Amino acid sequence: MKFLVINGVNLARTGKRERGVYGEETLDTINSELQAFVKAHGHEADFFQSDVEGELCAKIGQADGNYDGIVLNAGAYTHYSYALRDAIAGVSTPVVEVHMSNVHAREEFRNTSVLTEVCRGEVLGFGKNSYKLALESFWL
Amino acid sequence: MKFLVINGVNLARTGKRERGVYGEETLDTINSELQAFVKAHGHEADFFQSDVEGELCAKIGQADGNYDGIVLNAGAYTHYSYALRDAIAGVSTPVVEVHMSNVHAREEFRNTSVLTEVCRGEVLGFGKNSYKLALESFWL
Amino acid sequence: MKFLVINGVNLARTGKRERGVYGEETLDTINSELQAFVKAHGHEADFFQSDVEGELCAKIGQADGNYDGIVLNAGAYTHYSYALRDAIAGVSTPVVEVHMSNVHAREEFRNTSVLTEVCRGEVLGFGKNSYKLALESFWL
Amino acid sequence: MKFLVINGVNLARTGKRERGVYGEETLDTINSELQAFVKAHGHEADFFQSDVEGELCAKIGQADGNYDGIVLNAGAYTHYSYALRDAIAGVSTPVVEVHMSNVHAREEFRNTSVLTEVCRGEVLGFGKNSYKLALESFWL
Amino acid sequence: MKFLVINGVNLARTGKRERGVYGEETLDTINSELQAFVKAHGHEADFFQSDVEGELCAKIGQADGNYDGIVLNAGAYTHYSYALRDAIAGVSTPVVEVHMSNVHAREEFRNTSVLTEVCRGEVLGFGKNSYKLALESFWL
Amino acid sequence: MKFLVINGVNLARTGKRERGVYGEETLDTINSELQAFVKAHGHEADFFQSDVEGELCAKIGQADGNYDGIVLNAGAYTHYSYALRDAIAGVSTPVVEVHMSNVHAREEFRNTSVLTEVCRGEVLGFGKNSYKLALESFWL
Amino acid sequence: MKFLVINGVNLARTGKRERGVYGEETLDTINSELQAFVKAHGHEADFFQSDVEGELCAKIGQADGNYDGIVLNAGAYTHYSYALRDAIAGVSTPVVEVHMSNVHAREEFRNTSVLTEVCRGEVLGFGKNSYKLALESFWL
Amino acid sequence: MKFLVINGVNLARTGKRERGVYGEETLDTINSELQAFVKAHGHEADFFQSDVEGELCAKIGQADGNYDGIVLNAGAYTHYSYALRDAIAGVSTPVVEVHMSNVHAREEFRNTSVLTEVCRGEVLGFGKNSYKLALESFWL
Amino acid sequence: MKFLVINGVNLARTGKRERGVYGEETLDTINSELQAFVKAHGHEADFFQSDVEGELCAKIGQADGNYDGIVLNAGAYTHYSYALRDAIAGVSTPVVEVHMSNVHAREEFRNTSVLTEVCRGEVLGFGKNSYKLALESFWL
Amino acid sequence: MKFLVINGVNLARTGKRERGVYGEETLDTINSELQAFVKAHGHEADFFQSDVEGELCAKIGQADGNYDGIVLNAGAYTHYSYALRDAIAGVSTPVVEVHMSNVHAREEFRNTSVLTEVCRGEVLGFGKNSYKLALESFWL
Amino acid sequence: MKFLVINGVNLARTGKRERGVYGEETLDTINSELQAFVKAHGHEADFFQSDVEGELCAKIGQADGNYDGIVLNAGAYTHYSYALRDAIAGVSTPVVEVHMSNVHAREEFRNTSVLTEVCRGEVLGFGKNSYKLALESFWL
Amino acid sequence: MKFLVINGVNLARTGKRERGVYGEETLDTINSELQAFVKAHGHEADFFQSDVEGELCAKIGQADGNYDGIVLNAGAYTHYSYALRDAIAGVSTPVVEVHMSNVHAREEFRNTSVLTEVCRGEVLGFGKNSYKLALESFWL
Repeated sequence: MKFLVINGVNLARTGKRERGVYGEETLDTINSELQAFVKAHGHEADFFQSDVEGELCAKIGQADGNYDGIVLNAGAYTHYSYALRDAIAGVSTPVVEVHMSNVHAREEFRNTSVLTEVCRGEVLGFGKNSYKLALESFWL
Repeated sequence: MKFLVINGVNLARTGKRERGVYGEETLDTINSELQAFVKAHGHEADFFQSDVEGELCAKIGQADGNYDGIVLNAGAYTHYSYALRDAIAGVSTPVVEVHMSNVHAREEFRNTSVLTEVCRGEVLGFGKNSYKLALESFWL
Repeated sequence: MKFLVINGVNLARTGKRERGVYGEETLDTINSELQAFVKAHGHEADFFQSDVEGELCAKIGQADGNYDGIVLNAGAYTHYSYALRDAIAGVSTPVVEVHMSNVHAREEFRNTSVLTEVCRGEVLGFGKNSYKLALESFWL
Repeated sequence: MKFLVINGVNLARTGKRERGVYGEETLDTINSELQAFVKAHGHEADFFQSDVEGELCAKIGQADGNYDGIVLNAGAYTHYSYALRDAIAGVSTPVVEVHMSNVHAREEFRNTSVLTEVCRGEVLGFGKNSYKLALESFWL
Repeated sequence: MKFLVINGVNLARTGKRERGVYGEETLDTINSELQAFVKAHGHEADFFQSDVEGELCAKIGQADGNYDGIVLNAGAYTHYSYALRDAIAGVSTPVVEVHMSNVHAREEFRNTSVLTEVCRGEVLGFGKNSYKLALESFWL
Repeated sequence: MKFLVINGVNLARTGKRERGVYGEETLDTINSELQAFVKAHGHEADFFQSDVEGELCAKIGQADGNYDGIVLNAGAYTHYSYALRDAIAGVSTPVVEVHMSNVHAREEFRNTSVLTEVCRGEVLGFGKNSYKLALESFWL
Repeated sequence: MKFLVINGVNLARTGKRERGVYGEETLDTINSELQAFVKAHGHEADFFQSDVEGELCAKIGQADGNYDGIVLNAGAYTHYSYALRDAIAGVSTPVVEVHMSNVHAREEFRNTSVLTEVCRGEVLGFGKNSYKLALESFWL
Repeated sequence: MKFLVINGVNLARTGKRERGVYGEETLDTINSELQAFVKAHGHEADFFQSDVEGELCAKIGQADGNYDGIVLNAGAYTHYSYALRDAIAGVSTPVVEVHMSNVHAREEFRNTSVLTEVCRGEVLGFGKNSYKLALESFWL
Repeated sequence: MKFLVINGVNLARTGKRERGVYGEETLDTINSELQAFVKAHGHEADFFQSDVEGELCAKIGQADGNYDGIVLNAGAYTHYSYALRDAIAGVSTPVVEVHMSNVHAREEFRNTSVLTEVCRGEVLGFGKNSYKLALESFWL
Repeated sequence: MKFLVINGVNLARTGKRERGVYGEETLDTINSELQAFVKAHGHEADFFQSDVEGELCAKIGQADGNYDGIVLNAGAYTHYSYALRDAIAGVSTPVVEVHMSNVHAREEFRNTSVLTEVCRGEVLGFGKNSYKLALESFWL
Repeated sequence: MKFLVINGVNLARTGKRERGVYGEETLDTINSELQAFVKAHGHEADFFQSDVEGELCAKIGQADGNYDGIVLNAGAYTHYSYALRDAIAGVSTPVVEVHMSNVHAREEFRNTSVLTEVCRGEVLGFGKNSYKLALESFWL
Repeated sequence: MKFLVINGVNLARTGKRERGVYGEETLDTINSELQAFVKAHGHEADFFQSDVEGELCAKIGQADGNYDGIVLNAGAYTHYSYALRDAIAGVSTPVVEVHMSNVHAREEFRNTSVLTEVCRGEVLGFGKNSYKLALESFWL
């Protein structure tokens, strides 16, 4: 199977910002570890990151039909981007929502995700392992 | 008269996503039909599409004074983009809001448009004909 | 095709009240112009006005099957008449909601229409032309 | 005992509109069956229907003291007519609220009845049998 | 000066319903007393009552220009009739809102009047004297 | 037919608590009267009472397929027990919701039932007769 | 009869601030006119003004039993002073609430009065005549 | 490592109720599969199910210190049981919240979990695999 | 006098969970101290604890008439158990609500008690002394 | 130990206003009884009352460091005075909030205290004994 | 130019209360520094502080026309004093709102200022420098 | 010191749109004046403008550690961009929020800033001088 792992706004700075929350590894390091994890199970993965809401929407649209599954950490767009929601609802490829932190144990506004309703499922709270569990959900 | 027809986020995938809602024609096909419609009435039209909120704002700003009217389907940005609202409020060219589907008969969040208050009028629910009726409103 | 144009509460006073909003033409003058417009396109139209919510409901019920489309400006009933909503939902003839003014650019309570969800579409903000565009939506 | 069965807005079209919800029998057929039911138990009933909120209020006021009980299906007025509420509160004859469908299993706005608080009781969800159970409540 | 005193829904039953709140005098008795009061001050008054929201709207529209002032007790329509609000806003004759009881000391829903904003003023809580004070406001 | 009559929290104290609201008969007395009523119509009934939310859920689950209908007075759980709601939604046996008092004429929190949406119908306000009418709804 | 006319916060500046709303007469001028009006009807009045919420409460408390009625314009305290509300509720002397302007036609926060519920009645919208009508309500 | 898998209200009926949502396997079958899964990774697991909120709380309290992790599917209690929340907050053993279905794609009330804030993480939407991923999160 | 001290959900773990909030003494130790305190004043007390909402309701019902007063710390049920509220309202024995911590200085959901309205009074914030003060309130 | 007992707005009229709620003893009588109570336990107390919010704030500020504890009945200011809240939060002397009546069993607005969060604890519902229990909380 | 610097409730205790938030300098020290700052720029300033809402209103009213600008830190009155708001709206002298702390990064209730809408501008978050920047805004 | 001045969406059109609100100077003219102002105080500044939310986020991330302070006017993104909020929260360089107009005296939606909580402070209402005061806050 082939997967697309998408990281959204501010996540390029993982490892540099709010390390208490997101850890000290950079996004590249995490992505390499995910690539290894996926390959170890006989699959492959592509990776995409953008801070721009519209580019994330476009990427999801272009991915339709080219992947067996999408793992999406939309960052703060999670909480208000109906554009991303429409993008996800508009593709037949299943999308799994991921958060490294337990967003429900942080600020009030992080309690709302406008994306989950149109995703297949959600994994949150396990740091970089959230991505691994989300990927694994496709072949378990 | 000269018009600018703007389509926002995810609308490049018209004809590919949620066909039950948006029909099976691509945006290019629809735009061609609109061009023919406008020309048949002795007018002309330009077309613009972007998934990026800021690019839509910039386009509206640049259009100021260069068109007799703007027809705007902002997609999901309709429901929360105060940036687009400010862009519309900041131009003297009248803007007509358009939706292909009856947004009030769908999800709750589609009941709110933050744009309508600063548009001249709104046409919704008639598929691609929503664009035609919106264009016609300028010369009727 | 045959259409029924229904005007609701206070609209008999069009041309007399709030002329800055609704213009100076009386409802009779507007209806004559709509009749001419419809006939010019090879169709015909009946016209009905009542200030009484229940009479509007009854009229819509009686119209079922006798018209190809109904164009409805319910006036202030738009904002709270679930009775009208039920009447519309109870007929198979499609109804298009119309407003002369941009109701979203006026008082807060005009932002809510309890009717749109059960109408085919909506046209608002173009003065008397709103009726014309709504009618045209049936044969476009 | 003598009862008054009142049906409100749009209910004259029972059997014609939304048959999936309200069944295929007309209001006349149902009323005949109710009349038979009441008589079989040694009582009598009058029937009244109006689409006009004010006429329903007036009827309730006039009924005061002339009936042992009123069975009221107010249709959509149930959800917002404080006028009907005042009419009910203003008579000493007990009123029982009736709905054919389970209004709580339908649209959100049907969850609120402004009438129940001033009625003796409520029966809902049993089709035309709702009326029978409501009538029976007076002599059980 | 010439005044129109309008009483709305359920007020024809004044003196019969909820006497603890509205007193034991009938509307006719009260109107006669108001007529005497007005004449004693050298003015004249007409009186109108209807339970039907649309008829109240129509009456206000027809009164425009024919009276120096309108005194309106809309009954329960006070709390939700945007149709009446539009009717009042649509006439140049000033309207004074009146309530016999202190509506703010009763049920929650009586705390909201959708009419006051478009009326000149409001008098409430003084029984039938509320009408007198409202009338006097025009010549004081 | 065979029915199960379930009474929830605090209802074992019927006849002892709040007699002004619930009457002076004990639950046993009422159940005996219901048993007689049911048998007089050629049916039979079982009775169950528990103060424990989870036991009520379990009972409903176990009843699935063993009864033609369930009559449920959940007491205060009515207003917040999504667990009971899920239990009802999870059985194919139809459930009718019952309240002895007119819950809408009491405290605010009693206006909301989280159960009605998944019940077949509801009867409220007729004291112990509410149970009888609910039972009768199954064979009427 | 003997009355106490109380003016609250910022009303000492009447005639100096927001003249478009409150007119150009000073509070002293208005009070003199009210004194003359009251005396002309054979009554007498005392006048009190304070910007301090607690002093207004104390004054109302001290007035208990010494006046036949209190006329109170609490200014902005109207909208949030539960202390004043308690002061009014704690005296047996009836209080009539007064506003010079139509507070419902101004800012949103002026739509709420926490005082009216414990006052006998309310007069608003007639400028200084609001005070006269309120006083007259005691002897009409 | 040693884990405790807790299933809450109505989950004993898994495989019998709402099969479209929860699948056709019974809870015992699922638990056996989870046991095998855990053992295959060199760990062990205990299983507990109760419909009673208080028993679930007690079980969590007793588990404190005896397990390396708790996997909890609280069923409908998820949405309102502050008692469960307190139970979870009161133990040092980490708890992972699990849902078989995508609760955010179902009824509105399922959008709120009062538990997540005090759990380590959450996995939802993958059927019985949600339990496996939650368990795996402890040793990944 | 004879008192019943009831502790609700999770309070059996007092002294073990959240010691920063609830202190390090076990419930047994606290109850012994309360027993000594009560006896020192010439009274006696029984003690009851349950995690199960329905058992707490049943206990309160059974206590009716057998005690001079009930001291109740309902734990998290305080915030949503209308069942407990009904149980308290259904007994003539006065109930005093107690909390060891200052619940208003903790999470938002702890600001609401659905019980206080039907209790005689409330004592909160003084640790185990809250129980003593509540008991003392009966004989002071 | 030395205590300061502060009574807020309208409480100088205790014994004169709403005797059904607050009893017939004057504040002086109650304060004398509290003084005796405190002295009997070997402590001393000062007493302060003001109707003016700002004077209450100033008094609390001046008391900082001069007392071992403050007992505060703020009257209606309890419900909205963030100024008092800031005053309390700004002193290191602990403050205990007191109410004679059960404020949660009265009007809706009395359900909210903006002070409790920054007080040590709260005692309510025991008449003048509320003060005694609050004082005793300091030496228990 | 001549300025008036007004400090409201609890600000007399600056330097004594919540030093982590407001610093350790007293209000007198800060005012001296502001006086020096203003004089260094060739202007002069008066200073006023009161804990009493009504005195602050009165001061603002008296200042009208006597100053070129008012700098106002209203303390907690900021969040609910519509009286102060009216006082500000009633003077032609421009008022600049000031807060030493970033009120939006503190408690929820500090997020709302009822004053800003009628002030010229607002400066917040810079400690005592907030006053300086506000003063400088008048001559920049 | 070195500063970064960031202007967000639609601000490139300053001087062209809504001149009544934002003045007639272009952003370039304002930036030149700010550059001169900063240099006059011995500091230097860079300037950045983008209409694209994601580019603003990226810029703030890249600026981390390279500037002594950031002055940010986010335009309409201020009111809903949690992405920008996260970007600000993720850098150690202090950010000061700036608005040229008094956003609290305009439309309702401008009352909410999702950014202020994570900024050091805020300056609003002084036109282009808002930027100057914000810059000065760093060296005052």
